[in-house]
Amino acid sequence: MVVFINGQFVDEKEASLGIADLSIQRGYGIFDFFRTRKNIALFIDDYLDRFFSSAHLLHLQPAYDKKAIKNFLAEIMRRNGIETSGIKLILTGGYSTDGFEPGNPNLIITQQALEVSSKEKFEKGIKIILHEYLRDVPTAKSINYLMAVYLRDKILAHKADDVLYYKDDKVLEFPRSNVFIVTKDKTIVTPAENVLQGITRKKVLELAGRKYKTETRSITTSELRDSAEVFLTSTTKRLLPVLEVDGKPIGNGEVGEITRGLYNSFVELEDEYFRMNEAKSN
Amino acid sequence: MVVFINGQFVDEKEASLGIADLSIQRGYGIFDFFRTRKNIALFIDDYLDRFFSSAHLLHLQPAYDKKAIKNFLAEIMRRNGIETSGIKLILTGGYSTDGFEPGNPNLIITQQALEVSSKEKFEKGIKIILHEYLRDVPTAKSINYLMAVYLRDKILAHKADDVLYYKDDKVLEFPRSNVFIVTKDKTIVTPAENVLQGITRKKVLELAGRKYKTETRSITTSELRDSAEVFLTSTTKRLLPVLEVDGKPIGNGEVGEITRGLYNSFVELEDEYFRMNEAKSN
Repeated sequence: MVVFINGQFVDEKEASLGIADLSIQRGYGIFDFFRTRKNIALFIDDYLDRFFSSAHLLHLQPAYDKKAIKNFLAEIMRRNGIETSGIKLILTGGYSTDGFEPGNPNLIITQQALEVSSKEKFEKGIKIILHEYLRDVPTAKSINYLMAVYLRDKILAHKADDVLYYKDDKVLEFPRSNVFIVTKDKTIVTPAENVLQGITRKKVLELAGRKYKTETRSITTSELRDSAEVFLTSTTKRLLPVLEVDGKPIGNGEVGEITRGLYNSFVELEDEYFRMNEAKSN
Repeated sequence: MVVFINGQFVDEKEASLGIADLSIQRGYGIFDFFRTRKNIALFIDDYLDRFFSSAHLLHLQPAYDKKAIKNFLAEIMRRNGIETSGIKLILTGGYSTDGFEPGNPNLIITQQALEVSSKEKFEKGIKIILHEYLRDVPTAKSINYLMAVYLRDKILAHKADDVLYYKDDKVLEFPRSNVFIVTKDKTIVTPAENVLQGITRKKVLELAGRKYKTETRSITTSELRDSAEVFLTSTTKRLLPVLEVDGKPIGNGEVGEITRGLYNSFVELEDEYFRMNEAKSN
């Protein structure tokens, strides 16, 4: 597999950063991640906008603009020839002279074969636990996943699939996904503040708004538990139904019809995006 | 300069980690840092105990024990020949196969010339600002300094030298130092919980206990502001008087006599440590 580092394409085995980089010294950097199919990057403009927004929030100035990065993406796809993949951009704090002050950011682009989460997984749904935690600078997609990696053991101990953060009784987000609830009167709600602005979240909000009332506002943990349906959204998982929270079922404990409908609409939206962009590139 | 990585001694220019390392992917790792003089590492047993404690807290299992690491330290000091230095141990989450699950930790040891903060700096003291923040897993010395690096601009904007974290009105710690107050009745107090257990903090508490009443307990922000003296402790700074908090002076705004006395005692304790360990190695 070929990896991009600061303008060079190198084999992944040789892809490395000097130990003075601020990601290694201080866990400082941002990233983004999106999927490709037939060498077309899904919702790429949304993802690149968020990448630059995260960089800006953490005071990192990438050496390349959006157009240059799109060219690198085209080149890495051409070299690797993996049609269905996940592509990750990492922008680190760069080489620090004193192990604390940022240097010029290092940009890494990696690609891996990736199938999106299956329909079977959707129908199985997931069980989650709650944990009180607010991410630092939550609107930036930073590389700081200390708490997420740390909580792996807690998730395992509770035989759960994921952990949902809340703070001061307000539901926030999963370490790598956004959360939605469907209220008993069929309103689709997702937290507005102190969460990462997920691209799948954004698209699902748009889709939901065509059929239902939607709200972005705070959700208490008890409102979450009393919801008709709960689901998460993420780039790799699309939508996944949450069937159990802290050992207690949501609704009747089965996949909800509104969640299933939104999942189907999202799959259609993806297909449409790929179809249109394939047509453009022909 | 020679750097140690996983059993190899390499030139710093060649010292790197593959980009799959969990420090780069997820900011996951721990570290420690101590000083040397005449190739003797100050309070080394305390620092190594904390290093292993941090590793344990973040579920990282180093491939080497304390004795092996002491041998690596002796070897890196022999090769670099810098008598007065700072030595950093970093233990990362290791090479991850999926960019999230930890692998076998990577151990890095670096050395750099380092003079301890001067008496002139001590006499000048510092100005600080307060910021509400609680570190994740605060008793572990993790590499997560996202907030600390992020707050550089805020410190600059306030023409301050450092930022002191507090949470729910309880004073905690600086990003890289512990905080102490001297009350008007000459009690020496430092926060007990949700802070890194600094080695200089520990030694200063011991020294203070010989002459004064000491307490480890919570300190409110108003108690901090009303203190007779405030100072920080850190490996690179020993003790530094805090003369101003959020633009308002502490006491009369001058270096306090108790802080100065503890600073002198700490310098003597260091000298004694080096003298004894020099005698041992002869």
